[in-house]
Amino acid sequence: MRDNEAKALELPNTNGLLHRRVFLKGGAAIASIPFLAAGVSAEDRSAPDLVPEWTREPGAGMSPYGDRSHHEADVQRNVVSQPGTVGSGASRTPLQSLEGMITPNSLHFERHHNGVPEIDPKRHQLLIHGMVKRPLTFDLDNLGRYPMVSKMLFIECSGNSAALLAENPVQASVGELHGLVSCANWAGIPLSSLFEEAGVDPAAHWVIAEGADAALMSRSIPLEKIMDDGLLALYQNGERLRPENGYPMRLLLPGWEGNMSVKWLRRLKVVSEPAMTKDETSKYSDVRPDGKSLLFTFPMGVKSVITSPSAGMALRDKGIYQITGLAWSGSGRIQRVEVSADGGATWSEAALDSPVLPKAMTRFRMGWNWSGGPAVLQSRAIDETGAVQPSREAWLAERGRNAVYHYNAIQSWQILQNGDVRNVYV
Amino acid sequence: MRDNEAKALELPNTNGLLHRRVFLKGGAAIASIPFLAAGVSAEDRSAPDLVPEWTREPGAGMSPYGDRSHHEADVQRNVVSQPGTVGSGASRTPLQSLEGMITPNSLHFERHHNGVPEIDPKRHQLLIHGMVKRPLTFDLDNLGRYPMVSKMLFIECSGNSAALLAENPVQASVGELHGLVSCANWAGIPLSSLFEEAGVDPAAHWVIAEGADAALMSRSIPLEKIMDDGLLALYQNGERLRPENGYPMRLLLPGWEGNMSVKWLRRLKVVSEPAMTKDETSKYSDVRPDGKSLLFTFPMGVKSVITSPSAGMALRDKGIYQITGLAWSGSGRIQRVEVSADGGATWSEAALDSPVLPKAMTRFRMGWNWSGGPAVLQSRAIDETGAVQPSREAWLAERGRNAVYHYNAIQSWQILQNGDVRNVYV
Repeated sequence: MRDNEAKALELPNTNGLLHRRVFLKGGAAIASIPFLAAGVSAEDRSAPDLVPEWTREPGAGMSPYGDRSHHEADVQRNVVSQPGTVGSGASRTPLQSLEGMITPNSLHFERHHNGVPEIDPKRHQLLIHGMVKRPLTFDLDNLGRYPMVSKMLFIECSGNSAALLAENPVQASVGELHGLVSCANWAGIPLSSLFEEAGVDPAAHWVIAEGADAALMSRSIPLEKIMDDGLLALYQNGERLRPENGYPMRLLLPGWEGNMSVKWLRRLKVVSEPAMTKDETSKYSDVRPDGKSLLFTFPMGVKSVITSPSAGMALRDKGIYQITGLAWSGSGRIQRVEVSADGGATWSEAALDSPVLPKAMTRFRMGWNWSGGPAVLQSRAIDETGAVQPSREAWLAERGRNAVYHYNAIQSWQILQNGDVRNVYV
Repeated sequence: MRDNEAKALELPNTNGLLHRRVFLKGGAAIASIPFLAAGVSAEDRSAPDLVPEWTREPGAGMSPYGDRSHHEADVQRNVVSQPGTVGSGASRTPLQSLEGMITPNSLHFERHHNGVPEIDPKRHQLLIHGMVKRPLTFDLDNLGRYPMVSKMLFIECSGNSAALLAENPVQASVGELHGLVSCANWAGIPLSSLFEEAGVDPAAHWVIAEGADAALMSRSIPLEKIMDDGLLALYQNGERLRPENGYPMRLLLPGWEGNMSVKWLRRLKVVSEPAMTKDETSKYSDVRPDGKSLLFTFPMGVKSVITSPSAGMALRDKGIYQITGLAWSGSGRIQRVEVSADGGATWSEAALDSPVLPKAMTRFRMGWNWSGGPAVLQSRAIDETGAVQPSREAWLAERGRNAVYHYNAIQSWQILQNGDVRNVYV
């Protein structure tokens, strides 16, 4: 570590945030280890006694469907089920262990209301009925002939990050706090084409979506959204949907709260008024400070979170680190992400990985030269509509403490003198 | 199926290719099933005796690391190892069963020269040495502090599609024929930043990359490519690299033949001349008709293939189908994909899914109204440099029959009268 090189890259008065040059060219010694093995030159590195045992014998063969290394077994979803139930609860994506913009299918978050049904894909059908000229059913074979589309889309549970409403900061990983959000390459059939085929009554304005799970999870959806970008999703990151993501078919409403993207979809009923189902009255309505509820708060707000460094991690030494995280908005593309290393006193613009896509995760990055002194790291996302991610204080002032959905405030990570990272309210 | 609706969408004289409107709005009856259940109205669909058994009882719980449905177990990589070896060979991605642009990690193609080494990530190191000021080593902990970048990138084995050189058309699935190509969201460290830190001698022009597998897979790489967009990849579709993709770290050279993206990377030696390793002389050089070889043919050509319908599938009835496939180029973005339903007599422009990214897979789609008569389906990709995917005839005329690498000619699928799909040369 050469301090003068790192210093030369610092943005002034930011508590060590670094110029973007560090991403393009490097140039500062960050954490490499000079080659100093006793009695052997770098050129002799291939000498037999320096070749590890795994290089000395033939390796394992190919496999039909691969698995990850057993060394990665600790990277898991955090499973929490409601007492007395098996499948009513959630599992959260371990955001602290992931990189890039895609969530691998095995780690996509789950939220179920009565477990994952074991559906026979040959027998499952989707019915479109109600205020239509021709009630229609579709099975997987038929659907295979329809024109499809694929898109990168995030799904976020509207209850994500609710732990941040606690009076005192909960010490848990970023995945445990914010991991009810994931992003995948979804492929399926635009619902507009199936609805055009059924022939929708012009007096219809809503659609009731019903899942084939034992909860018969049901939501009312504006017909306009279905016709705009509603998707009947059949594939997730290339392969068929995973069972916990609605196999063999799910509704997908880009940018809207996750529970509306009804999994194991069996029925879309076209109607004139919302149905006021149990799932949109007992849950998924936002209780305001005065005790009344907001119904039908569909789009997820603009949001970001630093995934590294984050709570539970520790910086081992002062010097250069990468600050990275994810940003997303239910209203479109991420326009900009700003990072602060001084608890919000100053903000600097982060680099964004390509592609930056509407209603998808965007990975942001910022170099940082940690002085070893006190620091609070924050990120703040701005989307293409100009919406700015609020501070926790502003969010609470507007929504109050009765609300448990749609928390999208700025997350603060404090770096302690010893390098430990903690969840704090600032 | 209402024939007049489908007819109204046809592009004239194309043997049934359809206007793009079919993707946007539908409007033609494709393959839906009118709801005609005896003695029950569509509204009564939720009557208890019509609710399937999986809806009547609570489903399964959440899981820390999910798996796919057992109903999908037949979707597998096609494993072929060289006789007498375990890990020398390849497994191919089942392109016929996938959708979108991402290949799930468990189905990413494999090509190994002496198996998959079982590497302890805590002990694995990368050495950068040779013509540098400071030989450096890096382990996973150190690398975790470096600024990273993530990108969607395809990797294709230069031996992909070599079965198409056979005298007579091989009848096999599109995955078995063309499945040595996959696409993922890769994240890692730009090698330029590690090389800047090591301090490269201005007289150096090449880098020898060596893997930690028992084959010590080694290739010579122009330093310019390393500094341009060479990546030390650590993550694949969000999670750590899979063992068969180089866990814990691999070289990734966007757009270049797959074997150069050396897996299990242990050494990058900076040199002045290429090393003429076994892996670039005995293999991966292109033998020309006159018996001489072309060395160092790095970028993969512009290419596309229709994945559905494709060999081994069968159309069950005349009417509307989706034609879809993948296109990619080692030289940049896909500019356009054209589809023919009449063996190349006419070509129509296909729709491309977003995002269209450089050196990544692009999904293309075209609606088609099959008359039930003879048809040969083809796709032809054009990239942003203007390069056009050649016909098989043109490819053979230029490269001859000794070459087994870099086959990128147009694939032809014949639709037989009974709906069966076959690989043909036209």
